[in-house]
Amino acid sequence: MQRALSAHRVKDNRSNFPDWYQAVVREADMAETSPVRGSMIIKPWGYGIWEQIQKELDRRIKETGHDNCYFPLFIPLSFIAKEAQHVEGFAKEMAVVTHHRLKMIDGKLQPDPEARLEEPLIVRPTSETIIGDAFSRWIKSHRDLPLLINQWANVVRWEMRTRLFLRTAEFLWQEGHTAHADAADAMAETLRMLNVYREFAESTLAMPVIAGEKSENERFPGAVNTYSIEAMMQDGKALQAGTSHYLGTHFSEAQNIRFQNEAGEHVWCHTTSWGVSTRMIGGVVMTHGDDDGLRLPPAIAPKQIVIVPMLRNKPEDADVLGYCEALAHALARETAFNDRIRVQLDTKDIKSADKRWNWVRRGAPIIVEIGPRDMANGQVTYMRRDLLRDGDKVRSHSAPRDGFVAGAAQLLTEIQVRLFAEAKTRLDSNIESNIGSFEALAEYFGAAGDEEEASEFKGWARVGWAQPRGTALDQIEQRLKTLKLSIRNAPLGESPASLGKCIFTGAPATQEILIARAY
Amino acid sequence: MQRALSAHRVKDNRSNFPDWYQAVVREADMAETSPVRGSMIIKPWGYGIWEQIQKELDRRIKETGHDNCYFPLFIPLSFIAKEAQHVEGFAKEMAVVTHHRLKMIDGKLQPDPEARLEEPLIVRPTSETIIGDAFSRWIKSHRDLPLLINQWANVVRWEMRTRLFLRTAEFLWQEGHTAHADAADAMAETLRMLNVYREFAESTLAMPVIAGEKSENERFPGAVNTYSIEAMMQDGKALQAGTSHYLGTHFSEAQNIRFQNEAGEHVWCHTTSWGVSTRMIGGVVMTHGDDDGLRLPPAIAPKQIVIVPMLRNKPEDADVLGYCEALAHALARETAFNDRIRVQLDTKDIKSADKRWNWVRRGAPIIVEIGPRDMANGQVTYMRRDLLRDGDKVRSHSAPRDGFVAGAAQLLTEIQVRLFAEAKTRLDSNIESNIGSFEALAEYFGAAGDEEEASEFKGWARVGWAQPRGTALDQIEQRLKTLKLSIRNAPLGESPASLGKCIFTGAPATQEILIARAY
Repeated sequence: MQRALSAHRVKDNRSNFPDWYQAVVREADMAETSPVRGSMIIKPWGYGIWEQIQKELDRRIKETGHDNCYFPLFIPLSFIAKEAQHVEGFAKEMAVVTHHRLKMIDGKLQPDPEARLEEPLIVRPTSETIIGDAFSRWIKSHRDLPLLINQWANVVRWEMRTRLFLRTAEFLWQEGHTAHADAADAMAETLRMLNVYREFAESTLAMPVIAGEKSENERFPGAVNTYSIEAMMQDGKALQAGTSHYLGTHFSEAQNIRFQNEAGEHVWCHTTSWGVSTRMIGGVVMTHGDDDGLRLPPAIAPKQIVIVPMLRNKPEDADVLGYCEALAHALARETAFNDRIRVQLDTKDIKSADKRWNWVRRGAPIIVEIGPRDMANGQVTYMRRDLLRDGDKVRSHSAPRDGFVAGAAQLLTEIQVRLFAEAKTRLDSNIESNIGSFEALAEYFGAAGDEEEASEFKGWARVGWAQPRGTALDQIEQRLKTLKLSIRNAPLGESPASLGKCIFTGAPATQEILIARAY
Repeated sequence: MQRALSAHRVKDNRSNFPDWYQAVVREADMAETSPVRGSMIIKPWGYGIWEQIQKELDRRIKETGHDNCYFPLFIPLSFIAKEAQHVEGFAKEMAVVTHHRLKMIDGKLQPDPEARLEEPLIVRPTSETIIGDAFSRWIKSHRDLPLLINQWANVVRWEMRTRLFLRTAEFLWQEGHTAHADAADAMAETLRMLNVYREFAESTLAMPVIAGEKSENERFPGAVNTYSIEAMMQDGKALQAGTSHYLGTHFSEAQNIRFQNEAGEHVWCHTTSWGVSTRMIGGVVMTHGDDDGLRLPPAIAPKQIVIVPMLRNKPEDADVLGYCEALAHALARETAFNDRIRVQLDTKDIKSADKRWNWVRRGAPIIVEIGPRDMANGQVTYMRRDLLRDGDKVRSHSAPRDGFVAGAAQLLTEIQVRLFAEAKTRLDSNIESNIGSFEALAEYFGAAGDEEEASEFKGWARVGWAQPRGTALDQIEQRLKTLKLSIRNAPLGESPASLGKCIFTGAPATQEILIARAY
């Protein structure tokens, strides 16, 4: 059903999804482009979401036994050169520091030629090599294993096409790096953290994902196995929202990460790495946003309940404000998602109606509006951001004040669950599993028009796969690329009793894979 | 009294303070030098301290109305060039990014000459210019003021002589940046945050400080007033542990940060900035450490109570472990410093005695040792790290198990208070205020020998000051420099009724200043 857009609406997400995305990020005041090519400024509302993500994920990372550390931003070029020798398909787009001083020369400030570094430094695109170097010094005996380390940091990759949160030259992330005595322990860690990501995405971001293994060609350079979680955006595209890698002994051998086992032998460690980034915030926008702007799952909303006093420059304003303040205090004493409810009383000096729409666009889960009548009746008038409209009309609810306070945590939980259920239904009902051939696949997704113009919603395909490798795999990926498609992952977990045939090779399928357009 | 050092002792801090400092940091496993010149690796115990500092300080920064943001790591050279024009004494030692790609040329990986940046990028030494640029876009009306922003980030300054935590090329910090409608509001903010730092240092780090204004020559380049908190280390030197700057309209004018006031005029904003860094951790080490290693104030200890089970490879080991686990659970339900008590049961596969000394060196506030006899008696045996020894003997206490659990929070608070009191007594009793001339000052501090060898403890001098400026000030600072002394700050707060004379100029003093050797 096509709805008329009200003046308050951000943008219809069906007509041009990329424009809608930019509009939501801008109107929710989450982030903006900066004067530095490809780098963004994360504004308070966007950074507040990242803080909630950090807090919730960090707790899980620590509960699974990992310690946080901090390693240098810069990596000596020699480290990267060593990795380049060991690792194929290694990306070379990185920021290179060559000088350590500026100098005024001919009236112009420039790198001082006398301050050229003997060895250039690379701004970390990831910290595998510098952490591996530390591991080679820290690990001596089997008693030092497993070594379980995590780092929250900024990293830089010189991306050509950037988009706020989804792909930026600099981004914020966490990177886990672990070393183990054997393959089984390292693989268990790889899958444990993949599962932490899955559970976190689903329960905290309310973003359903499918966890699975990437194809051979999509592995992290140097990895033995790469796993991902993939989420379906509202345009049907897949977003890779987190990865976990089993690195075997490749990095250990390159960096001499060895330990003495109980038999006294010196053997290579098996290592893993895993990470998620600010990209997840882009996923939240594209999973939950609507034509009115952002909708935030309460678990990560910087403010879960916002109170807008309806002031009219009249004597009773002070009483209304007092009523609102008492309400804010009462709500802030309640607990939701194992933490105090995050309440904001919006006393900014602008019109109440503008405040309402500011918070709608920012996706605050519950917006309370209090006027003299609410005060007189001892009640609360509120909107649920997840169910904002009834047709075109904004839906507002009333409740006795004390009942609202007592039920607030329950209401936030309901919103969290509803947002997840809505996204889960979209995901589950848009994976086409009745495609038996490449031709049927091409027909399902249609010709590869300009992606900016593709308006018809297409989900993903789940098809039989015989795990072809080498040239056969390259050719299949090339064919998919002509349709702007890619293999997302081979889902873990239960498969149908009969897998049928591989739609590319005709051989009996050994697993299933997801195929989709992707970010 | 000189004590014989036991084998477990880290180092006597009276014989060589710098060596002692390095030994404490190393033996507490807090940090280490990295393969990247001047950059350190912050290990789990050191980073855990930083996490507690962040949590406690971030809460205060938010409670005073500031929002966290994130700005780009890189700053365009043109921004720095503009600042260099406006600001005298601007430091030019910074990391310069000149290329965005590596390339294999003649078998050697190097910066790709074809990927030279049109405009070099500077790795932020501080974010004044990039945040000021955003402020110039964000601020339009008086309704947008005050704008109160904070950032937690890594910054890089190319320091020549580095020392773990105290001075490193890359360090972690928070930088607050605010814009205000007038000077009074900006100055109130500058002093408010100075006071937040003072209160935080004293109540959380248990590190007494003196808050005051820096001399004209020691101001942040471009600042109208610079304030600092200064702490006294155990070698008598001063550590500047935080700064807060009132920038007037200097940065606003350079960056066009204007607003329309209620009269409709466009006027410059008054701005401030303020920051503290991982340097504070160095201050904690040098304030509280002793010959046995680090002593941590409980408020920032990553683990406040550590339980070491005394296992002897006997059948009763399982029961001892069970007793320890139940104790750990009971303690973790108690609250201290507004948070659950942080407990660790150390089950590592090493000798109990080694565990004890590991935790002593790391400064865990309470170390509990549980053997079969404790279990049989339903008791707990523990050491307080702040009062570890009686002469040379380690002092250990026994308490009924339930009483220990019930009193744990109180005990942690006592330790926090005692550590502060100890440091406060040292500070208060080592400020010499009876110095009436430069000659007396020189005599008090003695000749300026090699600072590494200076063994006699000297505190600070508090002397009369007539606020000389310009050349007169330069000359005084030069004279002080020959004694390796510097002006720390002019303390805020009450002064004696009679200030006497300026010991440098002989003119009637208008304030007092602190003079000390410093880090």
